[in-house]
Amino acid sequence: MTDTAKKNLNQILSEAKQASAVLSNLDNDTRSGALEDMAHAIQERSAEILSANSQDLAESKKLLSEGKITAAMADRLKLSAAKVRDIADGIRQVATQPDPLGSTTLARDLDEGLTLYRRTCPIGLLAVIFESRPDALPQIASLAIKSGNAAVLKGGKEAQTTLAVLFDCLTAALKSRGMPASSLVLLSTREDVESILKAEGLIDLIIPRGSNHLVRHIQENTKIPVLGHAEGVCHLYVHDDADPDMAVRLAVDSKTQYPAACNSIETLLVHKNIAARYLPLVAAALLDRQVELRLDEPSYAIVSKFFPDANLAHATIDDWSTEYCDLVLSVKIVDSLDQAIKHINEYGSHHTECIVTTDAKAFETFFKSVNSSGVFWKASTRFADGFRYGFGAEVGISTGKLHPRGPVGLEGLVTYKYELIGDGHVVSDYSGEGAKKFLHRDRS
Amino acid sequence: MTDTAKKNLNQILSEAKQASAVLSNLDNDTRSGALEDMAHAIQERSAEILSANSQDLAESKKLLSEGKITAAMADRLKLSAAKVRDIADGIRQVATQPDPLGSTTLARDLDEGLTLYRRTCPIGLLAVIFESRPDALPQIASLAIKSGNAAVLKGGKEAQTTLAVLFDCLTAALKSRGMPASSLVLLSTREDVESILKAEGLIDLIIPRGSNHLVRHIQENTKIPVLGHAEGVCHLYVHDDADPDMAVRLAVDSKTQYPAACNSIETLLVHKNIAARYLPLVAAALLDRQVELRLDEPSYAIVSKFFPDANLAHATIDDWSTEYCDLVLSVKIVDSLDQAIKHINEYGSHHTECIVTTDAKAFETFFKSVNSSGVFWKASTRFADGFRYGFGAEVGISTGKLHPRGPVGLEGLVTYKYELIGDGHVVSDYSGEGAKKFLHRDRS
Repeated sequence: MTDTAKKNLNQILSEAKQASAVLSNLDNDTRSGALEDMAHAIQERSAEILSANSQDLAESKKLLSEGKITAAMADRLKLSAAKVRDIADGIRQVATQPDPLGSTTLARDLDEGLTLYRRTCPIGLLAVIFESRPDALPQIASLAIKSGNAAVLKGGKEAQTTLAVLFDCLTAALKSRGMPASSLVLLSTREDVESILKAEGLIDLIIPRGSNHLVRHIQENTKIPVLGHAEGVCHLYVHDDADPDMAVRLAVDSKTQYPAACNSIETLLVHKNIAARYLPLVAAALLDRQVELRLDEPSYAIVSKFFPDANLAHATIDDWSTEYCDLVLSVKIVDSLDQAIKHINEYGSHHTECIVTTDAKAFETFFKSVNSSGVFWKASTRFADGFRYGFGAEVGISTGKLHPRGPVGLEGLVTYKYELIGDGHVVSDYSGEGAKKFLHRDRS
Repeated sequence: MTDTAKKNLNQILSEAKQASAVLSNLDNDTRSGALEDMAHAIQERSAEILSANSQDLAESKKLLSEGKITAAMADRLKLSAAKVRDIADGIRQVATQPDPLGSTTLARDLDEGLTLYRRTCPIGLLAVIFESRPDALPQIASLAIKSGNAAVLKGGKEAQTTLAVLFDCLTAALKSRGMPASSLVLLSTREDVESILKAEGLIDLIIPRGSNHLVRHIQENTKIPVLGHAEGVCHLYVHDDADPDMAVRLAVDSKTQYPAACNSIETLLVHKNIAARYLPLVAAALLDRQVELRLDEPSYAIVSKFFPDANLAHATIDDWSTEYCDLVLSVKIVDSLDQAIKHINEYGSHHTECIVTTDAKAFETFFKSVNSSGVFWKASTRFADGFRYGFGAEVGISTGKLHPRGPVGLEGLVTYKYELIGDGHVVSDYSGEGAKKFLHRDRS
């Protein structure tokens, strides 16, 4: 348990909020320098981190036998010397990213001597709630500090000894750079989560990283904006003119490369004109990789003819909106591109969808009409990821329509404010009789 | 009552949502052309609109005498031939704005032949809830259509005859351009509002335009993102080195140019070193304009000495967070720039704040540390407005930290999606042994 956990939580959040005002004033060198110090401290104290981790691992065996955590959770707890080095490298990668703050996205003379700017600035105080993976702490903390945000971090109780040492490395680095230690707060209890959800006015954005269940619980129990998604129901649509071999390769990668990931596909949509040719090919490849197929009537008829001995299932309406997180795939034949788009917009989760076609007009319609945060042409949905997009790291993927959307890296952790600079300009000069006209001239 | 109101509301919303997918596919010429047709129809049918408006006005007298609407509401109802012309001109101004859709904000080669774009796209289905002003309907509808969004519009019942004619002009224009008439929906009952608040998954963004009470009711009763703000508690801070005459001019304009507006100031913060010189000047100017002053102890001591006969009030802690919407101003003396910033961040509503100083370092600290959507240097807070910023029109002002923020015009009504174009690229080539490296080369 950290010192801070003993104080009144609202007081802690209030101090973190005040620290965020200090952070927003620091230059990039100071913020990035603190990240370099964090990376250095973590590498220096590697043995200590690994020893703390062994304690958590020993304890987790007990929790596992008592059914309080799952085997997967216990598994994600484990660090190694190589992993600690990766953590330090990851922080350094964030440090070297360009400064996300102070970018000018609008500069306009409203009149002579009256100039409007829109510039990026931090969001304020973030609350990140994550589960057993201890490397989430340094990753998220470094993204927060680099983007000038303060952060409250609630980790899994089963990782608490490891997290305490990592957290000490982070705050020591802040202190060594003269930055407020209250910029980062580590919490550990379930009651803390409930308090976070109620802290409107102090916390500006909540980022849950964990199970669908965790995300949904948070979304349903707070008025604070939540970044993230409960489900990832992604689609691959194979148009009638697709190259079947490419469509097989994309289906296999999108489904099997890491089936538990949110950007794996759950439903394969196939145009009726290519179904008889494509389905036997893709079914062979997927069945070979132990993928369970749940087929609508027309696709069942085709696949069962080719693979009479395979264990094929009939899809129900629930399959169209289910994230399996496993080697399971639902399959549906559609009459047209339009029907595919309608299916995706109705049953999907607005995460990432891919079309395989050679027709430029078809992919353009797909890109414009599918209202997901990612639309792909001839590329695996598994590319939907902050690291693969070149964001350095990500705090999550947002399937909402408002900013931030898609994989969220540093750019998603900043917002903007309007800055107006005049020289005593008043509105009354621009209204009524003989009103001055605005210039509205953009600066280049 | 419109035809649509007779159908089941969920069916109507569902059709509007489907229409939004069609709108997102239309080019700027088609969308802007429909706006030109709307403006034309409104001007053509001016007499009919004014006659409908007379009916609403006659009815409103009854409602007013029954206490069902306020005098201000009845007042806002009234249209004139000139106002109808202004409405049409307003729509034409939105039509000629640059296309907000399809702007590329990121273009990056992830690898040879694998290119990522981030492009602006519509949000989807908007729900706008407004009160008696009938000109809100064409203004908001034109902003929605121009930005490729469908919109559900709930107007005040007291304006329903006027709104029905205006709405007919709008949908006739959509039909004449072959656009789905269900892109715009007009609703009129209080029950419709409650249904809108529950329509998660169909409605993407709710925009309330009306009283603080209306906005707060909506914010507290929906899981859908709400654009807008309940309060506008704006500040003017006069630093110790300010030009007193300029600071008086800015205080007078920011408070009295239109006291009911959300961007008028409610609190004047004055540095202690300039208080004795500045307060008598500003008090004279404000008292002269019938502004009621609510002063903290130190400022009361100064002002009451100069104006012993004025009706001065003592400020209480509630004054620091109250939006008067009237000729009332609270005044507080602060010890430092830091104290001013802390006061604003603690008691303000994150709308718009101004600093008067000649010190570049002071205004920079103010700009970075004040976490409001607008920070001004030597300019009246009354400039915080979509028209004055050159956005053509605005649907509201957002005091939230996430997009959209500040005055919201067309740019705030679009979001973005990530588009990835490959040629059969799969993630498995980029992971494990012998993994290909990403290029992450930005296109200029």
